[in-house]
Amino acid sequence: MSKIAIIMGSKSDMKTVEQTASILNDFGIGYEIKVLSAHRTPKELERYIEIIENRGVKVIIGAAGGSAALAGVIASHTTLPVIGIPIETKSLKGLDSLLSTVQMPPGIPVACMSIGDWGARNAALFALEILAITDKKIQAKLSAHRKKMAKKIKKTKI
Amino acid sequence: MSKIAIIMGSKSDMKTVEQTASILNDFGIGYEIKVLSAHRTPKELERYIEIIENRGVKVIIGAAGGSAALAGVIASHTTLPVIGIPIETKSLKGLDSLLSTVQMPPGIPVACMSIGDWGARNAALFALEILAITDKKIQAKLSAHRKKMAKKIKKTKI
Amino acid sequence: MSKIAIIMGSKSDMKTVEQTASILNDFGIGYEIKVLSAHRTPKELERYIEIIENRGVKVIIGAAGGSAALAGVIASHTTLPVIGIPIETKSLKGLDSLLSTVQMPPGIPVACMSIGDWGARNAALFALEILAITDKKIQAKLSAHRKKMAKKIKKTKI
Amino acid sequence: MSKIAIIMGSKSDMKTVEQTASILNDFGIGYEIKVLSAHRTPKELERYIEIIENRGVKVIIGAAGGSAALAGVIASHTTLPVIGIPIETKSLKGLDSLLSTVQMPPGIPVACMSIGDWGARNAALFALEILAITDKKIQAKLSAHRKKMAKKIKKTKI
Amino acid sequence: MSKIAIIMGSKSDMKTVEQTASILNDFGIGYEIKVLSAHRTPKELERYIEIIENRGVKVIIGAAGGSAALAGVIASHTTLPVIGIPIETKSLKGLDSLLSTVQMPPGIPVACMSIGDWGARNAALFALEILAITDKKIQAKLSAHRKKMAKKIKKTKI
Amino acid sequence: MSKIAIIMGSKSDMKTVEQTASILNDFGIGYEIKVLSAHRTPKELERYIEIIENRGVKVIIGAAGGSAALAGVIASHTTLPVIGIPIETKSLKGLDSLLSTVQMPPGIPVACMSIGDWGARNAALFALEILAITDKKIQAKLSAHRKKMAKKIKKTKI
Amino acid sequence: MSKIAIIMGSKSDMKTVEQTASILNDFGIGYEIKVLSAHRTPKELERYIEIIENRGVKVIIGAAGGSAALAGVIASHTTLPVIGIPIETKSLKGLDSLLSTVQMPPGIPVACMSIGDWGARNAALFALEILAITDKKIQAKLSAHRKKMAKKIKKTKI
Amino acid sequence: MSKIAIIMGSKSDMKTVEQTASILNDFGIGYEIKVLSAHRTPKELERYIEIIENRGVKVIIGAAGGSAALAGVIASHTTLPVIGIPIETKSLKGLDSLLSTVQMPPGIPVACMSIGDWGARNAALFALEILAITDKKIQAKLSAHRKKMAKKIKKTKI
Repeated sequence: MSKIAIIMGSKSDMKTVEQTASILNDFGIGYEIKVLSAHRTPKELERYIEIIENRGVKVIIGAAGGSAALAGVIASHTTLPVIGIPIETKSLKGLDSLLSTVQMPPGIPVACMSIGDWGARNAALFALEILAITDKKIQAKLSAHRKKMAKKIKKTKI
Repeated sequence: MSKIAIIMGSKSDMKTVEQTASILNDFGIGYEIKVLSAHRTPKELERYIEIIENRGVKVIIGAAGGSAALAGVIASHTTLPVIGIPIETKSLKGLDSLLSTVQMPPGIPVACMSIGDWGARNAALFALEILAITDKKIQAKLSAHRKKMAKKIKKTKI
Repeated sequence: MSKIAIIMGSKSDMKTVEQTASILNDFGIGYEIKVLSAHRTPKELERYIEIIENRGVKVIIGAAGGSAALAGVIASHTTLPVIGIPIETKSLKGLDSLLSTVQMPPGIPVACMSIGDWGARNAALFALEILAITDKKIQAKLSAHRKKMAKKIKKTKI
Repeated sequence: MSKIAIIMGSKSDMKTVEQTASILNDFGIGYEIKVLSAHRTPKELERYIEIIENRGVKVIIGAAGGSAALAGVIASHTTLPVIGIPIETKSLKGLDSLLSTVQMPPGIPVACMSIGDWGARNAALFALEILAITDKKIQAKLSAHRKKMAKKIKKTKI
Repeated sequence: MSKIAIIMGSKSDMKTVEQTASILNDFGIGYEIKVLSAHRTPKELERYIEIIENRGVKVIIGAAGGSAALAGVIASHTTLPVIGIPIETKSLKGLDSLLSTVQMPPGIPVACMSIGDWGARNAALFALEILAITDKKIQAKLSAHRKKMAKKIKKTKI
Repeated sequence: MSKIAIIMGSKSDMKTVEQTASILNDFGIGYEIKVLSAHRTPKELERYIEIIENRGVKVIIGAAGGSAALAGVIASHTTLPVIGIPIETKSLKGLDSLLSTVQMPPGIPVACMSIGDWGARNAALFALEILAITDKKIQAKLSAHRKKMAKKIKKTKI
Repeated sequence: MSKIAIIMGSKSDMKTVEQTASILNDFGIGYEIKVLSAHRTPKELERYIEIIENRGVKVIIGAAGGSAALAGVIASHTTLPVIGIPIETKSLKGLDSLLSTVQMPPGIPVACMSIGDWGARNAALFALEILAITDKKIQAKLSAHRKKMAKKIKKTKI
Repeated sequence: MSKIAIIMGSKSDMKTVEQTASILNDFGIGYEIKVLSAHRTPKELERYIEIIENRGVKVIIGAAGGSAALAGVIASHTTLPVIGIPIETKSLKGLDSLLSTVQMPPGIPVACMSIGDWGARNAALFALEILAITDKKIQAKLSAHRKKMAKKIKKTKI
């Protein structure tokens, strides 16, 4: 059963979104991934959000680049927490994706992560932090993950 | 009968959009204005676009600020030409609105105008240029408008 | 009992953070506000985060401007979801606060909202969306709030 | 017979403009391509615009990089709709081309597309949308193209 | 007899261009000022450049804002040295004007000054430096002006 | 005995920080390098700063990228001079690191160097300039280094 | 006797530099202020740096706006630590001053502070931190200042 | 005999400056090239400017990257026209060089060209335009060069 749904605007975003999936796999959390575009498949996107809400999905992650309307449009159709990953773009390097994702007008919030791979990983972790509020197991795994990161740094040899 | 529909994301955008309306009034072209938000009223927006398509609207203008998804979302629901006006914002001065409006991924085009009042006036003129392709009267008025602008400049005293 | 804690880096951020508090008041959700700086009171900040974790706070909101380390530093001390509000600054208009808040390296996520007042309001709504996952009442209020916003737009006269 | 004329500022822009041509080929629409620079061949550019106006061209697309005056200068010589493609540049990655193309002062509109290849494809589609207003066949093809894009996305396997 | 011609794209640029005129007045150099737009009066602009070339003007200054094509278009019609003043704009504060003026493609140079008033004053001084190469009197006045500036700084009381 | 401590946020910053170390080696100054993250190891970072203060370290250099809180957080724990090196990032090329490092609010200063390798080298030289105030030998070496640089330039053949 | 010298590029920078002076007054540290421009009084600037070096000045602070060469030019004439304050500018809000001050090529370091008033205050504190390395009294005052700031924050009522 | 002097801040700028030299070679104009840094060899730079002024150099070109003080510092030592070439940099792609070169405060003008190779070529052409004011031969060559460029464009086959 999916607790988290990841939607990306284009199949080419998969190389970024893999980072999100990889962390969710490590944590053993059910999730689903879908390619749906705010601009090219608006109706399918709307329908899919309704479906996953009913299916019990708790958090939605949207990844898109350029005029990155995806996360905002997802958020317009649900009151579930929506996390946005601004995809790095060829010309403006994701500055366009970042501003499109983060500068949401008041009323419809989107939780914006950093551009690209960093943001993809943090989107997974932030979704897990949300679920951890009422799930001690995830909470424990998150704490362990933090300790592991710290340990790895402390053991670094230069 | 409206040939042109102007949609703005928030009532506060009206002081910019007035510039668009004012030019259309000068040209005596039927138009309609509506406040509809891509984020707060997505379903109403979608429905309205269907309605105006059937009503014979030929060009749609969308004005929004920040994560300015409006013009792109309009374009996702129609193959009518969509013109975007990036509204000036308080912090980033419309750079966010500009990049959100102009950096559309391939497949769903939006014709982006300049930020704020300049863009609002040009949105009207560009919509008129589109209509003028098959309307000699508008074409004549556009030519006259150009001559008037040139004349005003040539007569400028410093 | 506070479910949400709001921390701001400087008392001058209060005029922005008031927008967050005002929405939480409207929703009748317990929250607490505190001025604590990542740079000027790092130890007090760390201690306060421990205290509110134990007190049952579920979501933390951090608002700061310039080299806005606050939200990231909060996130470094907890696995609770941390929401960042980039405060508008005098010279760079919050671009500095935005990039400092949003570009978190992988491992420690921060959910970045838009710059200034817009972001302050959305921070409250996003925190409520997180709580709403397991709280039907908040969920109902969020849905009502969405409908109210949509209604207000639909009734707009121009 | 050309309905659309594509002008680029330099032969090196051809690798971008090919994307425009390719879509027009797919739609079976007559077009012509020309290298003419606003800066190096201003008189030839002016003359060419007059010629194509008389020849029945309906929409002009201008692609240029850096101080990208081309689309604006074309627009200064005609009231036909002018679409601008900001070419990606080596240093500033097309931010210069974008601002030069989009920030047109009031009176002479240019419809700016996104930077580079994305914009090149959208320029073709936007020109087609303009022609489709009075051409049911193009309109039908545009609708089919939209459906094809949506279908492709819906069939994506991850 | 005018040695220097100043062209501005809009009468509203006069408050900036006054700074240029004021310095030329101080130096007692003949100049002329004209409002002519690259976009709204392209033909008049072209004609005027021919006229002033024949009249013996040696340096041309172009001041414009937004998609500031003016200086580049002037340069496209003459091999006289062309100096560009990027006018400060309402939204992007002249960053658009600066990039439009300075990022000239190879072949047609424009000498770009700083944005706004600073650039307006420096345009005058740079034009004078050009004339001074073959005019000992202007050269002497420029040296005196430098000394006066230095003296004023050295006498500053704090 | 280390006079200078270099802290980097991630092992991947080592290729930049090597430039700092290399100059300190050339000058024969004792230093130590450590990987410690403001976000992933906040407590270890705090403890380490206390330790090196007691050990007699005089200057601390912090190198980090993205939401580069490191130098500011170090500075929050000490009144020793802290020098920040903004690491170049993949998407925004270090603009994020630069603004996060340099835009420190009043009260807790950080001495920001240029982005990447240039800044890494200058961080070493600036630390040496601080030590040179009370160390004639370092002062002499710095003067010699300046002369060597100048000599190298003067001898450049083109 | 002055331990610190503050140089500003123009008298108009005084309203920013006052913040620096005010903190040095509070700490009771001898300093001197001078208006000298890298561009308008290069020789006087060079001479002044020699004089203050001989007079025993230990740290130099340079404040300038726009093409802010001042701090870098000071640093080119001395191996004393040079701190740069990027002055806020009218059009680009100090982004120009910041990049001109901070992006020093390797070899000649400048310690860049934040733009405007924040940076002016931090320049004083950073200069004091440098002096504090060998002056226990200043060190004690800096610690007291930190505690005072922390106390003020902890006592904040909202 | 050199009419034009080209100064670059670092030997690594030579690959850009070659473009300037190549055009001057094509025009058969005497010039000299020198590596001299505003930051590392300030005195040699000052001395060299005096020497070339006496030697009859008419125009000076300065090319530098990052905190690109070079052109401004040259201009501070002479009233000869100074042309600046902002060198592309690794991180900020020359935006830093551009703002450092172009945003000169009033009093000391620098004629800024575009970033990198484009600017290097235009620097040569602009210097030639200055010399052409009193040199019919250069004037004729410039006109021929313009015609050649136009011809090349007109003959382009796509």
